[in-house]
Amino acid sequence: MIVGTVAFDAIETPFGKTDKILGGAATYIGLSSSHFNINNAIVSVVGEDFPADHLNLLSSKGINIEGIEIVKGGKTFFWSGKYHNDLNTRDTLETQLNVLADFKPVVPESYREAEFVMLGNLHPLVQLSVLEQMKKPKLVVLDTMNFWMDNAWDDLVKVIAKVDVITINDEEARQLTGEHSLVKSARKISQMGPKYVVIKKGEHGALLFNAEQIFFAPALPLEEVFDPTGAGDTFAGGFTGYLAESGDISFKNMKNAVIYGSGMASFCVEKFGTERMENLSEHEINSRMKEFKNLTQFDIELSAKKAL
Amino acid sequence: MIVGTVAFDAIETPFGKTDKILGGAATYIGLSSSHFNINNAIVSVVGEDFPADHLNLLSSKGINIEGIEIVKGGKTFFWSGKYHNDLNTRDTLETQLNVLADFKPVVPESYREAEFVMLGNLHPLVQLSVLEQMKKPKLVVLDTMNFWMDNAWDDLVKVIAKVDVITINDEEARQLTGEHSLVKSARKISQMGPKYVVIKKGEHGALLFNAEQIFFAPALPLEEVFDPTGAGDTFAGGFTGYLAESGDISFKNMKNAVIYGSGMASFCVEKFGTERMENLSEHEINSRMKEFKNLTQFDIELSAKKAL
Repeated sequence: MIVGTVAFDAIETPFGKTDKILGGAATYIGLSSSHFNINNAIVSVVGEDFPADHLNLLSSKGINIEGIEIVKGGKTFFWSGKYHNDLNTRDTLETQLNVLADFKPVVPESYREAEFVMLGNLHPLVQLSVLEQMKKPKLVVLDTMNFWMDNAWDDLVKVIAKVDVITINDEEARQLTGEHSLVKSARKISQMGPKYVVIKKGEHGALLFNAEQIFFAPALPLEEVFDPTGAGDTFAGGFTGYLAESGDISFKNMKNAVIYGSGMASFCVEKFGTERMENLSEHEINSRMKEFKNLTQFDIELSAKKAL
Repeated sequence: MIVGTVAFDAIETPFGKTDKILGGAATYIGLSSSHFNINNAIVSVVGEDFPADHLNLLSSKGINIEGIEIVKGGKTFFWSGKYHNDLNTRDTLETQLNVLADFKPVVPESYREAEFVMLGNLHPLVQLSVLEQMKKPKLVVLDTMNFWMDNAWDDLVKVIAKVDVITINDEEARQLTGEHSLVKSARKISQMGPKYVVIKKGEHGALLFNAEQIFFAPALPLEEVFDPTGAGDTFAGGFTGYLAESGDISFKNMKNAVIYGSGMASFCVEKFGTERMENLSEHEINSRMKEFKNLTQFDIELSAKKAL
């Protein structure tokens, strides 16, 4: 069960720019997690201006869209942004909340028993409202961003206290805790509630923490990153989708989930918007997972090592 | 066989500052590689002001110091620097070349058949001169820095053409090639000569490239980095020391070497200067290698993965 935006984006990177295209956190999370053998469903809101084609695309990927409310006469959430040359930073050019401003999410009865809940980036009160409608989820994953730290701190702290996993980027983790060291930062976030903390470092990979252990997944070194939009959401979709498919929420299995998250994100950035995620085969995913193995797995036999 | 500076450093970080302490590329490379079961030896130069204690320390670690020339009446190379708050950048406060200005390295006869040669950061002509005195090394590893790109480009290109492996940091790789993408950058560097390219990204780990493959070793996530001085040299010492001990220069074994490099560097930054490297047990190294395994190794069974 995914809650998050389904939206229009207009994106500019050094490689080009797009008109209004399909975007939104729930869109990327949904497309990414649809590659796993799970039943996924989106709760979101769009305006009457939202093309049926976009909704059909989501349906065609096996995503249940019963929970996407279409507001008569309303306009869909719109974001536009421009990336700087290194693609690590971006400026928001325009944000039109539109129908999102009054979004009161209603989780369809058929979704309420979902075991895996992904709270995509939204106002923390909307995330809380969704969580309260769920019966007894096995795992709740939260994504958020610095905007809510600046504008809805108390609500954000409340939702963080109620989730099992938080995914957050490095600068946001530092802002949330006042700690520069990501190790210290993760520990402080963990004390706020989540048993597992995932810190996303963009092109520098992602770290997974629980109270005792740390795991690191690199980003795939790419010749070019065309458009980072949605990479974090795609990561979260791969992470949660893999966990939902396997049903195993041990730290050991979360390591695999982080690798799948990183793998799915590595596709997302290869083309503009959702384009790459719309056309992605199981064969390509398996090949990329093999690339991640080659990239990270080594064979040091410690027991056989010298005894000086 | 190591060539590089043996020097005095004065270091300031947010955690404190030191007076003139033992430093220099060859010192860090030597201390790091001395933890492997090899015969290592340094070619360098110091002044008459260099304390016997420092030389005795190197000898006590099993490093042959016959090739460290002591210039009568000369003063030892001195560097002082101050790190910024994030420890990723630093300002050089003072550089006194002293005896390094006229250094004409002479490789002792007993070193000339060394199979593994580590050319630590120095003027490229000094590195070339050392290389010309070697009989038939099995593997030559070069470290360099942006200073030589700005001041001795043609000489630098000559030495790069003659080595098997280059270690270089990310910004330097970009400067050397004009490519922002590290994948493209590594390919261009490889075309300049080295079969293997190691790009060091500091706290973000290190990448190993050959013509077909990429491997990534993370830096160990630490609560605090006290002093990054010498971390790159310590990495190079661990990398080359491991390869020299095993005698295996396949890409597969270089993966292990990069992990050892990253592991040794993770100790170096825990205390000021060489302090941590002077007091490091085999047990600690093995424990840290186990940490690197836990940090990076996962268990995705691709063949068993869903066939959607």
